[in-house]
Amino acid sequence: MERSTIMQGHKKPFAGYKAEHFLFEASEDGQVLTIRLNRPEKKNPLTFDSYAELRDLFRDLVYASDIRAIVLTGVGGNFSSGGDVFEIIEPLTRMTMPDLLAFTRMTGDLVKAMRRCPQPIIAAVDGICAGAGAIMAMASDLRLATPQTKTAFLFTRVGLAGADMGACGILPRIIGQGRASELLFTGRVMTAEEGSSWGFYNALHASEQLEAEAVKLARSLAEGPYFAHTMTKTMLNQEWAMGLEELIESEAQAQAICMATQDFRRAFEAFAEKRRPEFKGD
Amino acid sequence: MERSTIMQGHKKPFAGYKAEHFLFEASEDGQVLTIRLNRPEKKNPLTFDSYAELRDLFRDLVYASDIRAIVLTGVGGNFSSGGDVFEIIEPLTRMTMPDLLAFTRMTGDLVKAMRRCPQPIIAAVDGICAGAGAIMAMASDLRLATPQTKTAFLFTRVGLAGADMGACGILPRIIGQGRASELLFTGRVMTAEEGSSWGFYNALHASEQLEAEAVKLARSLAEGPYFAHTMTKTMLNQEWAMGLEELIESEAQAQAICMATQDFRRAFEAFAEKRRPEFKGD
Amino acid sequence: MERSTIMQGHKKPFAGYKAEHFLFEASEDGQVLTIRLNRPEKKNPLTFDSYAELRDLFRDLVYASDIRAIVLTGVGGNFSSGGDVFEIIEPLTRMTMPDLLAFTRMTGDLVKAMRRCPQPIIAAVDGICAGAGAIMAMASDLRLATPQTKTAFLFTRVGLAGADMGACGILPRIIGQGRASELLFTGRVMTAEEGSSWGFYNALHASEQLEAEAVKLARSLAEGPYFAHTMTKTMLNQEWAMGLEELIESEAQAQAICMATQDFRRAFEAFAEKRRPEFKGD
Repeated sequence: MERSTIMQGHKKPFAGYKAEHFLFEASEDGQVLTIRLNRPEKKNPLTFDSYAELRDLFRDLVYASDIRAIVLTGVGGNFSSGGDVFEIIEPLTRMTMPDLLAFTRMTGDLVKAMRRCPQPIIAAVDGICAGAGAIMAMASDLRLATPQTKTAFLFTRVGLAGADMGACGILPRIIGQGRASELLFTGRVMTAEEGSSWGFYNALHASEQLEAEAVKLARSLAEGPYFAHTMTKTMLNQEWAMGLEELIESEAQAQAICMATQDFRRAFEAFAEKRRPEFKGD
Repeated sequence: MERSTIMQGHKKPFAGYKAEHFLFEASEDGQVLTIRLNRPEKKNPLTFDSYAELRDLFRDLVYASDIRAIVLTGVGGNFSSGGDVFEIIEPLTRMTMPDLLAFTRMTGDLVKAMRRCPQPIIAAVDGICAGAGAIMAMASDLRLATPQTKTAFLFTRVGLAGADMGACGILPRIIGQGRASELLFTGRVMTAEEGSSWGFYNALHASEQLEAEAVKLARSLAEGPYFAHTMTKTMLNQEWAMGLEELIESEAQAQAICMATQDFRRAFEAFAEKRRPEFKGD
Repeated sequence: MERSTIMQGHKKPFAGYKAEHFLFEASEDGQVLTIRLNRPEKKNPLTFDSYAELRDLFRDLVYASDIRAIVLTGVGGNFSSGGDVFEIIEPLTRMTMPDLLAFTRMTGDLVKAMRRCPQPIIAAVDGICAGAGAIMAMASDLRLATPQTKTAFLFTRVGLAGADMGACGILPRIIGQGRASELLFTGRVMTAEEGSSWGFYNALHASEQLEAEAVKLARSLAEGPYFAHTMTKTMLNQEWAMGLEELIESEAQAQAICMATQDFRRAFEAFAEKRRPEFKGD
């Protein structure tokens, strides 16, 4: 489908854009965008081109104020097997240092773009979630999985460091420094049960319910104060390495902005009148 | 009761002070202070005035070196329902930006004051612990709850961001980035069982035991090396966003200060003589 | 045994060095170093001299590129009881401030040296793991324990702050701010079960299997891309207090370095040929 129909009304011209390396579709009301990694015969690996296209999509979502929440998932019972061994790893073994750095910066830019895009991203993760796939799950805001999900930060298995796309900094904040160290040094699979009990996955659902549950969660966020949600996400990023005093002042400013919105007033009025609030993002 | 009787001997004149918006009382020996949010018919909400008075009390405790530990709890089976909808939310929907910022800074100042006050604060949390109530629990040093406690960072329910009073920076450090993101985006209740298994609550007790257990814990800290405890709290704050090298040097300095105290010598002598040490805070 | 036989081939002359305050031995192939705290009749306490010697050993390991992984354990069913009460605590109670600071800096330097040494350190922790012993476990990269392990950051019991050797900054990143606060304020024992469920210990094993399991894990790391592992460890340290943007750029650089290694090429070739890769650290 054409991206222009999703991001209609924006200044940036998306007319004519077609996703080449994944599927994406908006819900009927245009509020929830679902991105599906789609190369099921190889468990949805990433290639140079799909990395770049995903990065560009998440960057463009900064301007897509009609999109309120995003579901990221894979086709065919797997999330993603990560960087393709023959299409990515092999060429990398022959590259010059400037090209290697250009590559690692591009993959890092995907994580930056996922964190920077204002909409909450819900990863719906079934089956294999490995390498760059595990990173994309990690870079999402909320994560749902199934009991069969196998998650592995397996960079060590191809002779690389666990320091890939931010993992040494981000994973410890999600599951703790000790557990993150184990996963990043050994590259071993984190089972779904571990992922749930360690706080990587917010919930487990049966495979056949997974995407529906992710969409339900996305929808509940989309029907909530979605402008305020963009501020929650911004501040979760922004306060990452701030001191206590500074982060509290930053939130005072951020929340004052939200208190100046009509959505805040609408929520109060709805509460006072015992009805459900309708949020408009202004 | 008059605050002067608690903080006697200090230069700052507390004579004549009476708490208006909560109850507070010191233990017989004056070492443990219990603060009780006290408006049980509305589940102990906060108002503009009670925010300010709490902030001022925690600020004054910096100089109250006879107070060694603090218990923070609520009257009537609930901790706190947070900012009152009609006494706080409604006026906020009509304020100018400077006034909004003055308000969010004041509430942030309460968290700053709780973190800055040198005494460990033990929150004893039963029933409803919502909004600013959840924040006050979060800003405490230790947290006890009951199996019935329902904790919700529900700012999103009134159209606001989860970025309130430091929650986007502090909550992830307590329960992990993924779980904090879920609570802050959705505003959903964290059950007592979740709070305990995620490390938000240090222990659960039956309602009828809760305050006694909190006071017992406060007393054990008050009878310990309470000057050193103030240094533990200071450093837990201070090292929040320091690098590894810097935080280790900071602790070398902090612990050297503690090693120069008479309390340290007393503790060694008591150990050598197989008796219980008596700490005097010097 | 002589350290020169372990670190042979290095410029730094280790000939004639004998460990005085602990045991250490290299595996037959010289890749895995096991350090054993060895004063079992007192549960392997640390003294001024053993602190200094451990610090020096971990510092020297920076240059020991033939050592690929380290196991740190204790003799006689205990890990370490920490700073000896009569050999360390008593003299400290009589020292001048400059000497106190020199001591706390030396102990902090041990933690810095453990974090700085490029090899992953696996602590194998049975029995008592207290005070500076708990700190050494905390400063390791991976931690294995037994169901009988009792871990206590008990500085408070000798009249000191929990702020010792980095604990107020490091422990919260491993087990969360709330649980760390409890352990550091109260000095209470963390049971093995708690340590495992909170993420302090990566796994529990029976006492008779503990060291074998630690060595097995060390060996699996030593047979992996051990140069890349040193980068994983470096980045886990380095990104401790970086913002999201900065840590992602840092990893882009770090991983580009690893992609320029022959180990990376070897891993790909082994994968393509369906054989086990052999890593050489170049």
